[in-house]
Amino acid sequence: MPAHTVVDLQDPIFLAHRGGKLRTATTIPLDSREDLSVAYTPGVARVCEAIAADEALARTHTWRSNVVAVVTDGTAVLGLGDIGPAAALPVMEGKAALFRQFADIDAVPICLDTKDPDAIVAAVAAIAPSFGGINLEDISAPRCFDIEERLKTQLDIPVFHDDQHGTAVVVLAALTNALRLQERRAEDLTATIVGAGAAGVAITKILNEAGVGDIIVCDSTGIIHQGRDRLNPVKTHLAATTNRHGRTGDITTALKGADVLVGVSGGTVPETALQGMAPNAIVFALANPTPEVAPEVAARHAAIVATGRSDYPNQINNVLAFPGIFRGAFDAGAAQITEAMKLAAARAIADIAAEDLAPDRIVPSALDPRVAPAVAAAVKAAA
Amino acid sequence: MPAHTVVDLQDPIFLAHRGGKLRTATTIPLDSREDLSVAYTPGVARVCEAIAADEALARTHTWRSNVVAVVTDGTAVLGLGDIGPAAALPVMEGKAALFRQFADIDAVPICLDTKDPDAIVAAVAAIAPSFGGINLEDISAPRCFDIEERLKTQLDIPVFHDDQHGTAVVVLAALTNALRLQERRAEDLTATIVGAGAAGVAITKILNEAGVGDIIVCDSTGIIHQGRDRLNPVKTHLAATTNRHGRTGDITTALKGADVLVGVSGGTVPETALQGMAPNAIVFALANPTPEVAPEVAARHAAIVATGRSDYPNQINNVLAFPGIFRGAFDAGAAQITEAMKLAAARAIADIAAEDLAPDRIVPSALDPRVAPAVAAAVKAAA
Repeated sequence: MPAHTVVDLQDPIFLAHRGGKLRTATTIPLDSREDLSVAYTPGVARVCEAIAADEALARTHTWRSNVVAVVTDGTAVLGLGDIGPAAALPVMEGKAALFRQFADIDAVPICLDTKDPDAIVAAVAAIAPSFGGINLEDISAPRCFDIEERLKTQLDIPVFHDDQHGTAVVVLAALTNALRLQERRAEDLTATIVGAGAAGVAITKILNEAGVGDIIVCDSTGIIHQGRDRLNPVKTHLAATTNRHGRTGDITTALKGADVLVGVSGGTVPETALQGMAPNAIVFALANPTPEVAPEVAARHAAIVATGRSDYPNQINNVLAFPGIFRGAFDAGAAQITEAMKLAAARAIADIAAEDLAPDRIVPSALDPRVAPAVAAAVKAAA
Repeated sequence: MPAHTVVDLQDPIFLAHRGGKLRTATTIPLDSREDLSVAYTPGVARVCEAIAADEALARTHTWRSNVVAVVTDGTAVLGLGDIGPAAALPVMEGKAALFRQFADIDAVPICLDTKDPDAIVAAVAAIAPSFGGINLEDISAPRCFDIEERLKTQLDIPVFHDDQHGTAVVVLAALTNALRLQERRAEDLTATIVGAGAAGVAITKILNEAGVGDIIVCDSTGIIHQGRDRLNPVKTHLAATTNRHGRTGDITTALKGADVLVGVSGGTVPETALQGMAPNAIVFALANPTPEVAPEVAARHAAIVATGRSDYPNQINNVLAFPGIFRGAFDAGAAQITEAMKLAAARAIADIAAEDLAPDRIVPSALDPRVAPAVAAAVKAAA
């Protein structure tokens, strides 16, 4: 926001945020001397001693196994970029509120005053005994990959970077249903991913796991291929696991004959590039608030169109995935969220929409109350 | 607890702790698409942008300015000692629940998986943008002094080690009323502090500020004086600011002619030592659950006796102080909790009990609903 913009604090958005969106509550009475002696000293000492002797009791006799830390460093917040930890807090509070609303999970926003990956890993590892899971959020690529991997290795609780895996799970669910509608198989597809950030990398990975025939990934420089100079380690891995025919060039080349476009770049995809896609194309233009290509334009060249927006059909919204994924992981007592659990989540989301499938109904509504329980059950079973 | 002890999970204490004592809740509706667009994307982006342009809005438009992190490393939990972060969690949850109950403050337990002071300071500083205040809890001495000082210097939010300052505030309140009853002045007193840990050091400091004539501090080696070898920096400072007459020796010497005994050692004070105290002695034996001297024994040699226990009169309980102190600091928007704010808190606590003063009623009940608001108002005014 330009510094000269005047904020209207009477605007409904600002009124709704006044005082924040979260609070803590107690689940036991604290009204009498007896209450205090149970919840606090001296009674609590017995629970502490029991946990000291058998740490498994921390799972059952504290709030830990139901509470997620929603952790960010504020470097890649929504489409706003590196706005810092204080400005990121309203998003993390909102995310915490969604955990409560959709999965009966307690969640605490943790906005970190450091961008140094070593310091981020150290801080999250330090606070980990207080939490049952870590939801990483809005941490810029490629730092997010390393941070997540290191935390997964160090910690014995689920660590999940939602911008990667939540998005990937819902994209796979939507693609699954698009293929059901079109009676096509994943292995026959060529999919082009525009954007090689957190979401693009994770989508590429999950589509590979789901058996998609070939994947072409484009970043701002063009198609990622093994001959390209100065690829970072993540993109080097992308180059090795995509683009079977070594295609090179720009986005128009990348889309030539492609069956699927997934836009997660925040940039734009020109209509001329869409013209080269195969018949019955599937276009997911997920940048928010401005999709890479307007849905009306995409519809001229595609049979099925999805966006990240709530005001168009087929909203690819992470809230379909993360609440149920953590709920299922918690219910299973899982130490991590595995690829099998993510694939199970995608299948569960797809199956709910499959009951009433249409080109403009390939994913359930973000508010569909059946989704989180179904995802949780599938994830728990896969854990 | 010995490893062979069987925990009875049907015991009321364990049943009360099942699933923990805290939860998070949302303060705004999330039931409709419109609700989501206000609390989360796209609406939330405007609040983020506004905070990025003017960080002061993080105080008013997030939950930050009402939320305390209750931080421990699990090294000095209750009387249990170094039981680690997982076993400390029930106490921190209880503390968080007390913040909610007594001061309408949100609080989040943060149990740290490190005992290294540098790592503790780094972790707390890293998470600080998420919180309006830091309550340090059950961190062993002398590490706690350095950790608190460094965090106070680095952060622009209140940092308060409750084992030090909460205890000191309530001790001063109790002593104020004991002196009112006895019509004595602080400057005429000699006070002996048994224990030179977190509480002992802070009590010494606040009693000096309150004008107590002379203070003798004993640790497990005996009286602290300037001629003693191998004093750590904290005890060197104690030696320089107490013991005007350079008294040396053991606890019996320390209590000879003393008017006040404050026990915060967790050890014992023999009755023979109490016999040497001056007439009308005041004895606060605060170790929990076992006071340094049984109140019945102390009463043979003292006019006024207080303990840390709820089942005896005159309970010196930190809950009289910390909720109102943070409430007042938050209401004032204070960047720190100053000595003046602590003294104001002690006065406010004392004044409430002064309305109905007796040797067995020198402090208000821990459940007195007048206390936290009165402390908050006094602290806010002193901020």
